[in-house]
Amino acid sequence: MTTVRYCVNGKLVAGVSPTNRGFAYGDGIFRTMRLLDGELVDWPLHYQTLVADCSKIQMVCPSAEFLMQEFKYFMASAEANTRLASVIKIIITRGEGARGYAPPAICEPTRVFVQSPMPVYPSEIYTQGVALYTCQTRLAYQPVLAGIKHLNRLENVLARAELKDPRFFDGLLLDYDNQVIEAVSGNLFIRKADTVFTPALDSCGVAGVMRQKILDWYKTQGQAVIVAPIDKAALLDADAVVVVNSVYGILQVSQIDEQRLATDDWAGQLRLRLNYGVSADA
Amino acid sequence: MTTVRYCVNGKLVAGVSPTNRGFAYGDGIFRTMRLLDGELVDWPLHYQTLVADCSKIQMVCPSAEFLMQEFKYFMASAEANTRLASVIKIIITRGEGARGYAPPAICEPTRVFVQSPMPVYPSEIYTQGVALYTCQTRLAYQPVLAGIKHLNRLENVLARAELKDPRFFDGLLLDYDNQVIEAVSGNLFIRKADTVFTPALDSCGVAGVMRQKILDWYKTQGQAVIVAPIDKAALLDADAVVVVNSVYGILQVSQIDEQRLATDDWAGQLRLRLNYGVSADA
Repeated sequence: MTTVRYCVNGKLVAGVSPTNRGFAYGDGIFRTMRLLDGELVDWPLHYQTLVADCSKIQMVCPSAEFLMQEFKYFMASAEANTRLASVIKIIITRGEGARGYAPPAICEPTRVFVQSPMPVYPSEIYTQGVALYTCQTRLAYQPVLAGIKHLNRLENVLARAELKDPRFFDGLLLDYDNQVIEAVSGNLFIRKADTVFTPALDSCGVAGVMRQKILDWYKTQGQAVIVAPIDKAALLDADAVVVVNSVYGILQVSQIDEQRLATDDWAGQLRLRLNYGVSADA
Repeated sequence: MTTVRYCVNGKLVAGVSPTNRGFAYGDGIFRTMRLLDGELVDWPLHYQTLVADCSKIQMVCPSAEFLMQEFKYFMASAEANTRLASVIKIIITRGEGARGYAPPAICEPTRVFVQSPMPVYPSEIYTQGVALYTCQTRLAYQPVLAGIKHLNRLENVLARAELKDPRFFDGLLLDYDNQVIEAVSGNLFIRKADTVFTPALDSCGVAGVMRQKILDWYKTQGQAVIVAPIDKAALLDADAVVVVNSVYGILQVSQIDEQRLATDDWAGQLRLRLNYGVSADA
């Protein structure tokens, strides 16, 4: 599959209305996940996060049953081979609205599914790790929206637009207090000696499902992960850093700007333990 | 006219693709203006602002000629009476994109025109002024996006959703430093003795065209308007406060939360001087 397909409110239509609040104001949320052998990988965790994010912006998430019904309808028209491995993005917006910011008294959330080809990553990102550049664009302090994967993503767009050097896989995002928050398209974990850290996301950033999955896994191991502010010096001084998201999975960070980082096989071990293989295997 | 009409990329189509970057990331800008006797009111100023805002997020704005050509096509299908008075919203996005935040190397901006009925405001808002409530939602410090009327408007949505009491016309938005920035849907001007102030918008907020029009008019009068941080105490202590946007025009603020403000006929004088009448006359 080279094309992108989509489905809006359970129909294979040409698009969403420009009066949809998702388009007009970015008034909605989304999640991106792998489709593998016809199943959405980690769907229960993705759904739980959709519900939580909807709630944070005062929307009611459609039921899992309803979303799965629309998803099955959507996939019924998919080419068989695309069900083996592709990427599914689910977008839920506050629905249609009149002019003006006020949310309508009665909203029917808009559900959008987008199916895209699974990206073909160079195998080196799994074997040798990836380099991140430090973005000039900073994330704003906005606790009301922090952690939510909402549709207001201009900061990410501008940060990602800074990347011109093909040696770099993604950007490193700091806030205005010089704290490390995340990558433009992923979350970060840091290991120093036997302690694992991940940046706190209570003032900005997106709390990804792969981040949650790793937090949950460490919990089952009885090992605490420290969720705290992390500055760049701590990142550069770490024994290992990984960057994670639900599409590429878990990657070692081998370099930040021009500085090489300490590396080991932490990313590979986590992929194995979490059974979240490289995308070529997926 | 009770319905809303729209036009996407010069066609009367059903919608925009969910892969449009305006929908996916709020990656675009917009302006709302009056249509009066078939003409877009203050179009040169609106166009100049569209160009400036596009540039700030590294987009190239289509030419005024091109936009006007699409607008004329759109209006050719409008009912004659709707050309006398309605509201036109122009949205320009970075266009279609693949999955991922990176702006495509080559973008064709998407142009959307939306025509809505002119709101019917109660005449009292022009004669007696309006009340504002102070929003709990604060605007984030983000100088990179400050002033731009971009499509990332969740702060405005959440702030406007706080309004439950029909006595209030709009919300008053502060930043996290307790500075007064704007109304949810308009800009503010304050007069103390003979001095006019308007909040600085270099850390957050939207620099509206009506705000610019008023700044320009005071300049032609040889009177400086002080653009500076303004706290709420200064607002409450002002001799007069007006709230302005391109749809309702210029309104006196007669009350903030439960506190009455000093009022005079500043709003009415400005409407007269700027030839920007009440919407019922427009």
